[in-house]
Amino acid sequence: MGRGTGALISISLECHFDAAHKLDLPYESPCNRPHGHRYIVRIIASAQRLEHGMVVDFNVLKGVVERFDHRDLNALPEFADMPSTAENIAIVLARELQLAAGARVSIDEVSVHESPQTAARWTKPA
Amino acid sequence: MGRGTGALISISLECHFDAAHKLDLPYESPCNRPHGHRYIVRIIASAQRLEHGMVVDFNVLKGVVERFDHRDLNALPEFADMPSTAENIAIVLARELQLAAGARVSIDEVSVHESPQTAARWTKPA
Amino acid sequence: MGRGTGALISISLECHFDAAHKLDLPYESPCNRPHGHRYIVRIIASAQRLEHGMVVDFNVLKGVVERFDHRDLNALPEFADMPSTAENIAIVLARELQLAAGARVSIDEVSVHESPQTAARWTKPA
Amino acid sequence: MGRGTGALISISLECHFDAAHKLDLPYESPCNRPHGHRYIVRIIASAQRLEHGMVVDFNVLKGVVERFDHRDLNALPEFADMPSTAENIAIVLARELQLAAGARVSIDEVSVHESPQTAARWTKPA
Amino acid sequence: MGRGTGALISISLECHFDAAHKLDLPYESPCNRPHGHRYIVRIIASAQRLEHGMVVDFNVLKGVVERFDHRDLNALPEFADMPSTAENIAIVLARELQLAAGARVSIDEVSVHESPQTAARWTKPA
Amino acid sequence: MGRGTGALISISLECHFDAAHKLDLPYESPCNRPHGHRYIVRIIASAQRLEHGMVVDFNVLKGVVERFDHRDLNALPEFADMPSTAENIAIVLARELQLAAGARVSIDEVSVHESPQTAARWTKPA
Repeated sequence: MGRGTGALISISLECHFDAAHKLDLPYESPCNRPHGHRYIVRIIASAQRLEHGMVVDFNVLKGVVERFDHRDLNALPEFADMPSTAENIAIVLARELQLAAGARVSIDEVSVHESPQTAARWTKPA
Repeated sequence: MGRGTGALISISLECHFDAAHKLDLPYESPCNRPHGHRYIVRIIASAQRLEHGMVVDFNVLKGVVERFDHRDLNALPEFADMPSTAENIAIVLARELQLAAGARVSIDEVSVHESPQTAARWTKPA
Repeated sequence: MGRGTGALISISLECHFDAAHKLDLPYESPCNRPHGHRYIVRIIASAQRLEHGMVVDFNVLKGVVERFDHRDLNALPEFADMPSTAENIAIVLARELQLAAGARVSIDEVSVHESPQTAARWTKPA
Repeated sequence: MGRGTGALISISLECHFDAAHKLDLPYESPCNRPHGHRYIVRIIASAQRLEHGMVVDFNVLKGVVERFDHRDLNALPEFADMPSTAENIAIVLARELQLAAGARVSIDEVSVHESPQTAARWTKPA
Repeated sequence: MGRGTGALISISLECHFDAAHKLDLPYESPCNRPHGHRYIVRIIASAQRLEHGMVVDFNVLKGVVERFDHRDLNALPEFADMPSTAENIAIVLARELQLAAGARVSIDEVSVHESPQTAARWTKPA
Repeated sequence: MGRGTGALISISLECHFDAAHKLDLPYESPCNRPHGHRYIVRIIASAQRLEHGMVVDFNVLKGVVERFDHRDLNALPEFADMPSTAENIAIVLARELQLAAGARVSIDEVSVHESPQTAARWTKPA
């Protein structure tokens, strides 16, 4: 039998990726020019039952985020049909992290800092 | 009569220990090699009634954590039957801190940072 | 009469720009893929004689750096003939800052942080 | 023709490794028990002439340090004949970084933080 | 007999003041509009001989700086004839700190941070 | 044979002590009232030749500083004849650290922070 923890154990991970991107806003904006950021990503996950003593291996979550490292976000299939804003990056990462972590694990929160001053946060629906 | 505080007083403590450990994951991982970390532990405790004006002496809590300092976690009895993950360290510490602090005190939260970027958090069941 | 200060007054400025770039290293490297960074730039300048009470207006220095903001460095004329490494960005900025500040001012040091962990520093030849 | 820089360009890199170790001091010490640390390493390097626009690829330096990550230092050949103190780690890293960077590059300084409070620093002989 | 220390003892002090000011630059600049800053001042002083065990009482240095707190710098006699730039504030403070500390003490360095990103530094002539 | 390092290896240590003290300044000052601080001490030491792979065991240096922890400095023999200022604490610590470390080791610098904003620094005479 697994070690039931009553969802009392959560983990947090901070990682980053360096990527190029640009927006296509219908108005004049520096964001419409190709540029880039160091994106800082913070993830909170939890589980009712640990596996190998873990909610989920930190390296599994990190691997999902690092697929975006040293890439042009606009050239990735994920952003073929939607703008590569911090908001959409958080939504995309939440979905891909949930897929990678599996049904036992709950991805509860994903924050994406585009700069030290600007961030978007996805929170799991209650 | 004791000074009833209606559980309004809580304390927090941050301390650390430097320890070796390794995991035995059923897949290839750098975590399966003997290595080590500076673990940062954050504890929140509260009490309905203070004793000597304290929820609990910080040194009592610190003493529990420091038993892990400059040790190989895998060689400790606590981790004889379960992996020495950050999640399990939090669970073990929560149990031992509760024992050391006594029934008057409530250990409410124990976080274990394995690195500045990765942490596990145990929260007392409601 | 100018207020001679015997070069005892120096100023420092930290500013940043968010830009895309890529390298063309002759070996496999993630740096060869289009990506981006938040670059942090630190400048030290000094002058024998203040003008308007200043070594040089911080906004003049900032203006030079901000020309790189929200740009693809590889598309700029400065990097047409050399790789857009942190080292070359520091060399280029030092030259352009010196031009903008004028002969009265000495640009003494220019550091370019490509990430919080990696930096290149140009120092004025003695 | 190489771009002579007159040794004015230096780079700095901060990276880390998580490792187990123990000392064999001839007196009672917690350091004689197997334990571990997150080691923070800071490197300063410079070059008279850039190559590919770089003093040296940050990834080359990082690769040398990361060979120690998630390892038991005492089991490595480098520490077969000498204690795995922060001082010796700095000496060993300086030698291996110089070998990896090649004769064009000067490794000027290597600091090894065993904890946020304790560090050893190797400085290149003048 | 005084305790001669061979000028080996230096002290450092960081303090701050909140003040209004404006410049009168001969070109359009936001600095020409009345505004204000929290100025952070860092002082280094040394002495050949301690008095009451001190290079100089921190409160004496602090008192000099705090005369500028909650003031309009442009209304102070110090800045009647020169612009209230960070450079000139450093020069004025260095002179007034030296007067207050007396001839036994050497004011070695005064830095004035107008913001976390911008600073001017006065260094004592060698 | 000892491993000659040509004094290229230095170590740094940061530690702290919490102590009460008061001054007896011949003028009105809050420092004349019994009070206390968390003192932060930074030590730099170096050696021509390592012993057990170390300049000196961090615990030896720490032990010297910790003798002041949770004490009334004015009641210690060290401060029987001189005021317990940060300057004198640095002088006293430098002397005691040098005694504890032995002649092979050079204590190069001792800084004593009385608060995050105020510090005294002892530097070894050249």
